Amino acid sequence: MREFREFGHKMIDWVADYLESPERYSVLSTVKPNDIIDGLPAHGPEQGETIEHIFEDFERIILPGITHWNHPRFLAFFANTSSPPAILAELLATALNANGFIWKVSPAVTELEVVALRWLLHWFGLPRDWFGMILDTASTATLHGIAAARAAIAPETRDIGAPNDLVLYMSDQAHSSVEKGAMSLGIGRRNVRSIGTDSEFRMLPELLVDAIQKDREAGLRPFCVVATVGTTSTASIDPVPAIADVAEREGLWLHVDAAYAGSAAVVPEFRWILDGCERADSLVFNPHKWLMVPVDCSVFYCRRPDVLRHAFSLVPEILRTSDSGLNLMDYGIPLGRRFRALKLWFVLRYYGHEGLAQIIREQVAMTRDLRDRMAEDPRFEICAPAQLSVICFRQRGTDEANRLLLDAINGSGRFYLSSTLVGGRYILRIAIGNMFTSRATLEELWSLLDALVATME
Amino acid sequence: MREFREFGHKMIDWVADYLESPERYSVLSTVKPNDIIDGLPAHGPEQGETIEHIFEDFERIILPGITHWNHPRFLAFFANTSSPPAILAELLATALNANGFIWKVSPAVTELEVVALRWLLHWFGLPRDWFGMILDTASTATLHGIAAARAAIAPETRDIGAPNDLVLYMSDQAHSSVEKGAMSLGIGRRNVRSIGTDSEFRMLPELLVDAIQKDREAGLRPFCVVATVGTTSTASIDPVPAIADVAEREGLWLHVDAAYAGSAAVVPEFRWILDGCERADSLVFNPHKWLMVPVDCSVFYCRRPDVLRHAFSLVPEILRTSDSGLNLMDYGIPLGRRFRALKLWFVLRYYGHEGLAQIIREQVAMTRDLRDRMAEDPRFEICAPAQLSVICFRQRGTDEANRLLLDAINGSGRFYLSSTLVGGRYILRIAIGNMFTSRATLEELWSLLDALVATME
Repeated sequence: MREFREFGHKMIDWVADYLESPERYSVLSTVKPNDIIDGLPAHGPEQGETIEHIFEDFERIILPGITHWNHPRFLAFFANTSSPPAILAELLATALNANGFIWKVSPAVTELEVVALRWLLHWFGLPRDWFGMILDTASTATLHGIAAARAAIAPETRDIGAPNDLVLYMSDQAHSSVEKGAMSLGIGRRNVRSIGTDSEFRMLPELLVDAIQKDREAGLRPFCVVATVGTTSTASIDPVPAIADVAEREGLWLHVDAAYAGSAAVVPEFRWILDGCERADSLVFNPHKWLMVPVDCSVFYCRRPDVLRHAFSLVPEILRTSDSGLNLMDYGIPLGRRFRALKLWFVLRYYGHEGLAQIIREQVAMTRDLRDRMAEDPRFEICAPAQLSVICFRQRGTDEANRLLLDAINGSGRFYLSSTLVGGRYILRIAIGNMFTSRATLEELWSLLDALVATME
Repeated sequence: MREFREFGHKMIDWVADYLESPERYSVLSTVKPNDIIDGLPAHGPEQGETIEHIFEDFERIILPGITHWNHPRFLAFFANTSSPPAILAELLATALNANGFIWKVSPAVTELEVVALRWLLHWFGLPRDWFGMILDTASTATLHGIAAARAAIAPETRDIGAPNDLVLYMSDQAHSSVEKGAMSLGIGRRNVRSIGTDSEFRMLPELLVDAIQKDREAGLRPFCVVATVGTTSTASIDPVPAIADVAEREGLWLHVDAAYAGSAAVVPEFRWILDGCERADSLVFNPHKWLMVPVDCSVFYCRRPDVLRHAFSLVPEILRTSDSGLNLMDYGIPLGRRFRALKLWFVLRYYGHEGLAQIIREQVAMTRDLRDRMAEDPRFEICAPAQLSVICFRQRGTDEANRLLLDAINGSGRFYLSSTLVGGRYILRIAIGNMFTSRATLEELWSLLDALVATME
């Protein structure tokens, strides 16, 4: 334990230095495929090695292969933060190593999850009595939402298998995890409908109605619609109230994918993004995306836990208990349950409601300022409303010119942006979400963009 | 960052003290349902709080609700260890917060996973070219194995949905996750066959053959058999070579659940437990069970990654890449991928092959010594061969007397054992797996058992 103590202190200082001086690192790793594999021995060591030696290799071989997600100039995908209080909480959780698959085997793991998830419902203005649990990713959570939807319309599935006439609806901007979830559950891709969107990339409810009617006429059973609050490409927000109307009228399960944007609802003036979501049957949002919690922490809420339980519950004898505690294993696929609530609870308390709101409010403000600046510059085109913290833009000109621009930005090592295709066009994205990203960071990005575009003209 | 640094050092010392002085804690939490919930505010704080204050509440409110899994006297389920080098690795991984869903977004996350999993294949004497990836739990991994099995026999599933004539086989001792996996995927429970076992709880291959024949005659399609190496109740080991023969002859996918016992194959004289597994199509084992790695870290191997990829691959535009790196998102449900390989790599190097083998070898030896001692005592009955690190036993007498005995042991706060039903009988389990469990620990357990049984007589 002497070695643990000594190196533990060194690593705390290393982490503090890492977070204080991100500029020392190129944001995007520049290694080539197999560099790390080739840099490491083909076989593991027969004899043990010292922490000192392993840590040297971590710095020398592993670190150059890391793309620095926890970096203020990481602006790709959805940027996020592993915040200092969360890092400390994970240290404690790892030491405890509690595995809360049933209440009894570590009551605090289950109950702190209940408490933290209720606090969030309160802050979000969502029904306080929703059932909630933490899963690893939004992909897994959405799969659970679809499985519950199926259990609601076809409860016999658990016994006789998946019916082949159930149809699921999502927008053409929905995340691939919706289709993957349906596919994994045994609902074929041919039974997944991609509903068209308006000029701001929001699902058109009238097209949803048409599609449902057409499927009913064909003898199929519409069972689930997935609305997205903050799509992956453009952060667009589906009209959830109108979709909820359709779902209610048609008897469909409404699952909401708010993985990225949901966190913004901690800000009172952005609470509107969840309008209508109080009518959802299930909803996912990821504190590991925009709520300063490190991966993995995906929150899954369900209004009808009895249905979810029907989809997943199977209790083996070794885990049968007589207490009245909540056994979260009954509500999903994974049995093991890491103590992920601890980091979430540390973050909610350390920053508080107002602290978190202020971080997100300021990120949205700086996003809008950069968007306005780009919109005023004739060399750029803004390709989607940037209401939250994502800017979709193009340099006016060809897709190829925009590809070169992205390569130049990312190749600089100073920033990492990502790209997407929207309406067949190649588009660049700036996603702000790391809490250490400042206006100065964006000023620097603007200078780089300005210089690169000038060179390319 | 000053606060992080200050409290980081305090928490490293707290963790070191925690690991050094486990006797300060009752192994099993004694809180009642809702104690933790009632001990915390109904609403989260509006204003942020200090780490000091949060940590006080952690010690005062959360810790009493923790059952101490990382404790030498935790002998329930499958005991495990969050070892010192793994705790340090998790600290680094949390600070980096890298999310390696595709190679490009953090090459080291993918490639270290490849390297560490190859090292294990080498140590286990399994085919070096197997594809491997880390998932959260064995439940998730087994679901992936079954999904791949389905994609092999019915590749049209991804497009048109699950067929309803596929039949899966497992033993009557298999983990509930096998049935749950099939059920979740849309394979009804009526298509899951539970095959009988011999007097040592091992699947009877002749009964498997009979069941397959009967199903074929009924017009069904046998597609997958799950063999278990180390069952949950008794740690029994199915005859994998004979099951592999059947699978090969009948064209079934062979998935092996070695979640607990697989780790023992790092010991050369226990390598036999994986005999026949080189013929498996997929296999899961959990370093977070018996390889000194904290939850979650479940290793999933697959001999036919092309089939796995067919079951799960869906690539959205935003994640399309042109490099030749391996994109692990294509092989499973979760998109996000935490840097779990780092803790595994730290552990493999810190202890080395011989160090890990020596820990497990000694745990098996002390298990057998305790088993022999109990077998010689007429008051006890050993209920299953204890070949590895699990002893199934009963006090001679009624189920009720054994229930009371377990309550007395667990109620002491000094040990945590679990129970199971085998052949309709209530049985107690001693599972050894924490690296700090010593012969002295078991001596103390024996004294307690001896005293309790004496009192009850």
